[in-house]
Amino acid sequence: MTGRPIDVLNAAKGKNVMIKLKNRTHVSGILKAFDMHINVWVEDAQVTDSEGNATKLGNTLLRGDSIIYISPVQ
Amino acid sequence: MTGRPIDVLNAAKGKNVMIKLKNRTHVSGILKAFDMHINVWVEDAQVTDSEGNATKLGNTLLRGDSIIYISPVQ
Amino acid sequence: MTGRPIDVLNAAKGKNVMIKLKNRTHVSGILKAFDMHINVWVEDAQVTDSEGNATKLGNTLLRGDSIIYISPVQ
Amino acid sequence: MTGRPIDVLNAAKGKNVMIKLKNRTHVSGILKAFDMHINVWVEDAQVTDSEGNATKLGNTLLRGDSIIYISPVQ
Amino acid sequence: MTGRPIDVLNAAKGKNVMIKLKNRTHVSGILKAFDMHINVWVEDAQVTDSEGNATKLGNTLLRGDSIIYISPVQ
Amino acid sequence: MTGRPIDVLNAAKGKNVMIKLKNRTHVSGILKAFDMHINVWVEDAQVTDSEGNATKLGNTLLRGDSIIYISPVQ
Amino acid sequence: MTGRPIDVLNAAKGKNVMIKLKNRTHVSGILKAFDMHINVWVEDAQVTDSEGNATKLGNTLLRGDSIIYISPVQ
Repeated sequence: MTGRPIDVLNAAKGKNVMIKLKNRTHVSGILKAFDMHINVWVEDAQVTDSEGNATKLGNTLLRGDSIIYISPVQ
Repeated sequence: MTGRPIDVLNAAKGKNVMIKLKNRTHVSGILKAFDMHINVWVEDAQVTDSEGNATKLGNTLLRGDSIIYISPVQ
Repeated sequence: MTGRPIDVLNAAKGKNVMIKLKNRTHVSGILKAFDMHINVWVEDAQVTDSEGNATKLGNTLLRGDSIIYISPVQ
Repeated sequence: MTGRPIDVLNAAKGKNVMIKLKNRTHVSGILKAFDMHINVWVEDAQVTDSEGNATKLGNTLLRGDSIIYISPVQ
Repeated sequence: MTGRPIDVLNAAKGKNVMIKLKNRTHVSGILKAFDMHINVWVEDAQVTDSEGNATKLGNTLLRGDSIIYISPVQ
Repeated sequence: MTGRPIDVLNAAKGKNVMIKLKNRTHVSGILKAFDMHINVWVEDAQVTDSEGNATKLGNTLLRGDSIIYISPVQ
Repeated sequence: MTGRPIDVLNAAKGKNVMIKLKNRTHVSGILKAFDMHINVWVEDAQVTDSEGNATKLGNTLLRGDSIIYISPVQ
């Protein structure tokens, strides 16, 4: 039951995640890697704005400082 | 009576918490883990926006930098 | 007359404090603990928004980064 | 003529200061203590909002991160 | 499959990248160099504002602190 | 021709400077001291808001975190 | 082809640069010096607001924290 918060990301590697950003958009894609600053590398990423418009990004590096939360897609 | 502020989170592990975020939303769920940056791992999370609309997130990692306060649900 | 600024919090432990937050709300409650980042643990907390509406929170951990000032209630 | 910027606060201890905050308010009171983060302890503090309404706070700890400038009252 | 998040930038050196900034603009150009703060040097850069107007910048140093994400252009 | 950026402040000690702040105001006065965080002590300071209204501050400590730029007055 | 991002600034010393700031203005002038925080000293600086109005600043120290990007003028 315990562990570090970022352990939840270890279990999500290679799987789809949804990443909520501070600029009112979110990015979806396959989690490839992350570091202790919660900088995140996502593959096959797409960004969706606050009105629901999606744009493909492909490989993307997201800076941890811009991230509110990360959630595996079920 | 004394202790460190984050001790209140130790007592809340495995229980429901409400986490107020800087982007005018809050996340509810079961507190699984946290670290000294107050990064938080929540299970069965759902996010509620400022108009009361709730969305299920499941397992979620929240960055401490986006958190205003954390409160166990009574 | 001198000392460190956070000494004022030592004298306030176990007493009512009012904590002004950056999101235009304030939290009132009994100060239980704090650390050097001014993360604060408050008991019997309630949050009041900018229009005066109060909500009970109970035990609450507030991140120092969201705090503008802390003042004992007289 | 030289010295460190915070030396100006040493000369102001025990005297009235005006502290401009990032949230468009200012706090006035007697400077009791400060640290290198410019966290400040003010006695007999009162806060004045951008429309000139003043509220008594008494003893107050202000986080340096919320402060724009500090000026002794002449 | 694993690695560090910034490895995705190593693979993008000398190629076109799109860099989303916090001020609602994005910069496109050839990635020349980056560091661990994700400060980025881009050649033949152009900035596009939120209404789609593009301006040539040439060689440009972007501070990591202003970057939301970086994505190779496919 | 080279040197550190803050050398420009060494040459400005005892002279009038204009300090642009993030809150859309600027402070003018005589530069007395500064440190590596660009915290600044200004004498005979006055603050001018975005509509041109000036207020005398006298001795003032400005936190570096609130400063955009500092320019000697010619 | 490689190097550190700030190497692009070494090549720009003594030349005209355009510095985009977070407050929706930009500063132009001759780059004299910079440090690893990307604090920048600019000579013969002028600031231009978002409506195109320019004001002469002369020697200016810009805090890195306020800078979005720096670009040599071609």
